[in-house]
Amino acid sequence: MTQPGLMQYNDLMISSLIRYAAEYHGSTEIVTRTVEGPLHRYTYREAEHRAKKLAQALMRRLNIVSGDRIATLAWSTYRHFEMFYGVSGIGAILHTANPRLFDEQIVYVINHAGGRYLFLDVDFVPLVEKLAPRLKHVEGYVILTDRDHMPQTTLKNVHCYEDLLAAEDGQMTWPVFDEKSASSICYTSGTTGNPKGVMYSHRSTIIHALAAAQNSAFGLSVYDVILPIAPMYHGNAWGLPYIAAMLGAKLVFPGPKMDGKHIHDLIECEGVTFSCAVPTVFTMLFQYLEETGQKVDSLERTMIGGSAVPKAMSDKFLKDYGVRVLQLWGMTETSPLGTIASSTPEVDALPPEAREAVLSKQGRVQYGLEVKVVDEQGNPVPRDGKTYGDLWVRGPWVVAEYYRGEGGRVLDKEGWFPTGDVVTLDRYGYIKITDRAKDVIKSGGEWISSIDIENLAVGHPKVLQAGVVGVYHPKWEERPVLIIKPAPGASPTEQEILAFLDGKIAKWWMPDKVFFVEEMPLTATGKIKKITLRERYKDCLRA
Amino acid sequence: MTQPGLMQYNDLMISSLIRYAAEYHGSTEIVTRTVEGPLHRYTYREAEHRAKKLAQALMRRLNIVSGDRIATLAWSTYRHFEMFYGVSGIGAILHTANPRLFDEQIVYVINHAGGRYLFLDVDFVPLVEKLAPRLKHVEGYVILTDRDHMPQTTLKNVHCYEDLLAAEDGQMTWPVFDEKSASSICYTSGTTGNPKGVMYSHRSTIIHALAAAQNSAFGLSVYDVILPIAPMYHGNAWGLPYIAAMLGAKLVFPGPKMDGKHIHDLIECEGVTFSCAVPTVFTMLFQYLEETGQKVDSLERTMIGGSAVPKAMSDKFLKDYGVRVLQLWGMTETSPLGTIASSTPEVDALPPEAREAVLSKQGRVQYGLEVKVVDEQGNPVPRDGKTYGDLWVRGPWVVAEYYRGEGGRVLDKEGWFPTGDVVTLDRYGYIKITDRAKDVIKSGGEWISSIDIENLAVGHPKVLQAGVVGVYHPKWEERPVLIIKPAPGASPTEQEILAFLDGKIAKWWMPDKVFFVEEMPLTATGKIKKITLRERYKDCLRA
Repeated sequence: MTQPGLMQYNDLMISSLIRYAAEYHGSTEIVTRTVEGPLHRYTYREAEHRAKKLAQALMRRLNIVSGDRIATLAWSTYRHFEMFYGVSGIGAILHTANPRLFDEQIVYVINHAGGRYLFLDVDFVPLVEKLAPRLKHVEGYVILTDRDHMPQTTLKNVHCYEDLLAAEDGQMTWPVFDEKSASSICYTSGTTGNPKGVMYSHRSTIIHALAAAQNSAFGLSVYDVILPIAPMYHGNAWGLPYIAAMLGAKLVFPGPKMDGKHIHDLIECEGVTFSCAVPTVFTMLFQYLEETGQKVDSLERTMIGGSAVPKAMSDKFLKDYGVRVLQLWGMTETSPLGTIASSTPEVDALPPEAREAVLSKQGRVQYGLEVKVVDEQGNPVPRDGKTYGDLWVRGPWVVAEYYRGEGGRVLDKEGWFPTGDVVTLDRYGYIKITDRAKDVIKSGGEWISSIDIENLAVGHPKVLQAGVVGVYHPKWEERPVLIIKPAPGASPTEQEILAFLDGKIAKWWMPDKVFFVEEMPLTATGKIKKITLRERYKDCLRA
Repeated sequence: MTQPGLMQYNDLMISSLIRYAAEYHGSTEIVTRTVEGPLHRYTYREAEHRAKKLAQALMRRLNIVSGDRIATLAWSTYRHFEMFYGVSGIGAILHTANPRLFDEQIVYVINHAGGRYLFLDVDFVPLVEKLAPRLKHVEGYVILTDRDHMPQTTLKNVHCYEDLLAAEDGQMTWPVFDEKSASSICYTSGTTGNPKGVMYSHRSTIIHALAAAQNSAFGLSVYDVILPIAPMYHGNAWGLPYIAAMLGAKLVFPGPKMDGKHIHDLIECEGVTFSCAVPTVFTMLFQYLEETGQKVDSLERTMIGGSAVPKAMSDKFLKDYGVRVLQLWGMTETSPLGTIASSTPEVDALPPEAREAVLSKQGRVQYGLEVKVVDEQGNPVPRDGKTYGDLWVRGPWVVAEYYRGEGGRVLDKEGWFPTGDVVTLDRYGYIKITDRAKDVIKSGGEWISSIDIENLAVGHPKVLQAGVVGVYHPKWEERPVLIIKPAPGASPTEQEILAFLDGKIAKWWMPDKVFFVEEMPLTATGKIKKITLRERYKDCLRA
């Protein structure tokens, strides 16, 4: 029996973030490229006031009570930002559904989460009209726009977001309740099975924000201008809508337009210093910059996650644009901060090549997220940066179980969560993702890393995207094949590609075949859909 | 009734800090100027191993159980650092007694906290021998040294720290228990009444560490070399022994020698980038630097708290030594981070003089610590940077009540803690301490700030320290008098000083008399003891 301390116990509430920003950084801007078209700009003070009006509308007009789920199909905008606070702030639960899922998946997740209302951007109205008959729990719809932009629609019980807000006065005090209460839910877009829901809490969100803002992690301050390109429906835009408010930093939301030109315009015009996205978004940005000869002068750092960052991409960012790339490894299940490849004095003291090799990994372990890397018997593998093992994580911002118990018990008996990633861990504390456990290629009893080959292949100037999968081989059990989407206008040959890889990987890692495709199958979050590739090429090495 | 989130609930444990540092920054150094003399250096890996040995010794040899208090009378050293983790890590409570208190106060706090063992540095043996008969609960003593340096002593049941550790193997796993458990206790050295105990918890300590490391606050990273000059018995060295481990940053402990030469040597030899202390320590450092023409090249930032920082001091630091001064306001009751004068883009955009005026205040409100400034009726005062009010604070690292209920109920019914400071709050979110509530001078119904006059006075080259108190005046109720300790070798006159103040403060703020003293009465933490000054000069303006 321990003696309790005598400090205040203040429940860690998400509403405290926006309240702080409004009170002490009240005139700092939030800028949005709206779905309707023009740029919108206002301040944290106005954002909180409107989030309170939303909270009032939810409670008084839509009869939402604590614990209810509210779904969104929405881009990253100031209105979606208001929902992050207005919904969670009253104890309701925000379900940011991913509009890029297939129709059946969208229907599945909205039904599974049980949202009573669906808030959607105008451009999703046709989609939702089509899906509405199958949405079991949705009682009504709110279109995230103003009266002038309200579309004709067949949807029942439809509200206009701005009208809802206009009817309220914003005179309310954020309620305080148990910090362990659910605040929001995101579904993982698994490549197999149904998406599974991760239900964040107020506590996990606040502790994650405090940890992720540290210099070892995102390294953010009130001086940053933050452009989360990673969408708000993808791991809460990596927590940035919370972190920015905590710091009082200017926020820039890209709305629906994530092409190179629009992203470049926002960076330049708003002085963006910090951004984050999956690699494919930056590929588009590079194409635009190269075509137009433009630069991104204000941009200092960008965080890339979702897939391993090709070395060619981080090199180009630094050399051509002076932007430092921070590799992040994380998952919906880790809020999403897992590890991040920030440096240390110890790593800086290494010879340049060794240093670069460490920093090109997926990142070093951060305080607060415990990591174990174990072999098939559950024993820790040596921290030599070479031995593969399964990555397990534990910590106050890691999932405990999926919503409604999907997937059964996920943690081991000591509370560790299996990430499904196969990694190495080095003496400096950096992990390197070798593969997803299910993507590892087992050839003649040895493991081949599909990711390593892919990252090398995209370094070839004629290659835009590359995917490596293991396919059945009568002698070796599995062998790697490489599927390439060429760069625009380029026509690489199998010989060229194999010659390029030669000497950079072990002989027995060399792909048995190279295929060229016009379109790469992608998941809803822009990752290469290996399950499709495996299915498509499964018989290509049969005798 | 809210819906619980589905994230892991991991109790926030102080032991997780040192475990992280040992595991991922295992070869980072901790350097100490020992009480015995020479420098001692080892690593986080060794520190954790020894903290575990200490934990074992406490449990197995000294029969310490969760909830027991362990007192220290010790300087800032690696052994004291080990106690921060070894004691709290097993659920026992570390009481860092201030050896600069008067004898009766030391006896009072050790008895009040009820420590079962007292760990002390060798140089405190004579003091403790004298006090021992009055220490009611202390069953035994541990001298923080090795066998070779063990003194002859009349103390009963005495152990040698290094012998205790040598008998253990360090093979243990830190236990996990309720994060709200008490971890340590510090007594406030009030100028009136008995000291009161603030009992920190594991939760408050971890959340404080995460918040205090932010760029808006201490702005620390793994690249810093941290020298806490503020002692470990003074607000846990402002939390730095915890924060440094969380970051894996190199730590430098000054031991008992805080004079200019020894501090300078440590900064230069160990490459210290960040330090913290009360102003008087830096006055000594400046004297040494000026006498010797030395510099402090590695030092980038220093945090000064405990008293308002004289403008002359922060100017000198920046202009002569290139060191940026961060003013901190905090208390034992706030762990100690209250506000800190880091800048913002909004303040940077002000004209230079206006900017400097803002940054010379005691600091801006940080996320996580709520602030209210209210008049005598409890109404918020305007945020105009002019109107005085009482400062109240609330947050997860603020005291809820004093140990054993001393002082009764301290919080108001909404959970706010009265700091006893009178402040202004400006539109940028910065507070300026005008006075301790009890030090405000009330003259003819108006308030005079003693601190403002003191800060001006120490800007005079012939002034080393200055104290202003209100004394009885037959017509005006109170009038200010100024007490000065001249700079070494200087002999300022009353006329000189008054002429220097003339035009810088309102006419009616001008002190009625100026006194010169050889020694300024100071509190145990180096603050000017105004209660003594008030008593000494109380009749000086009577007719």
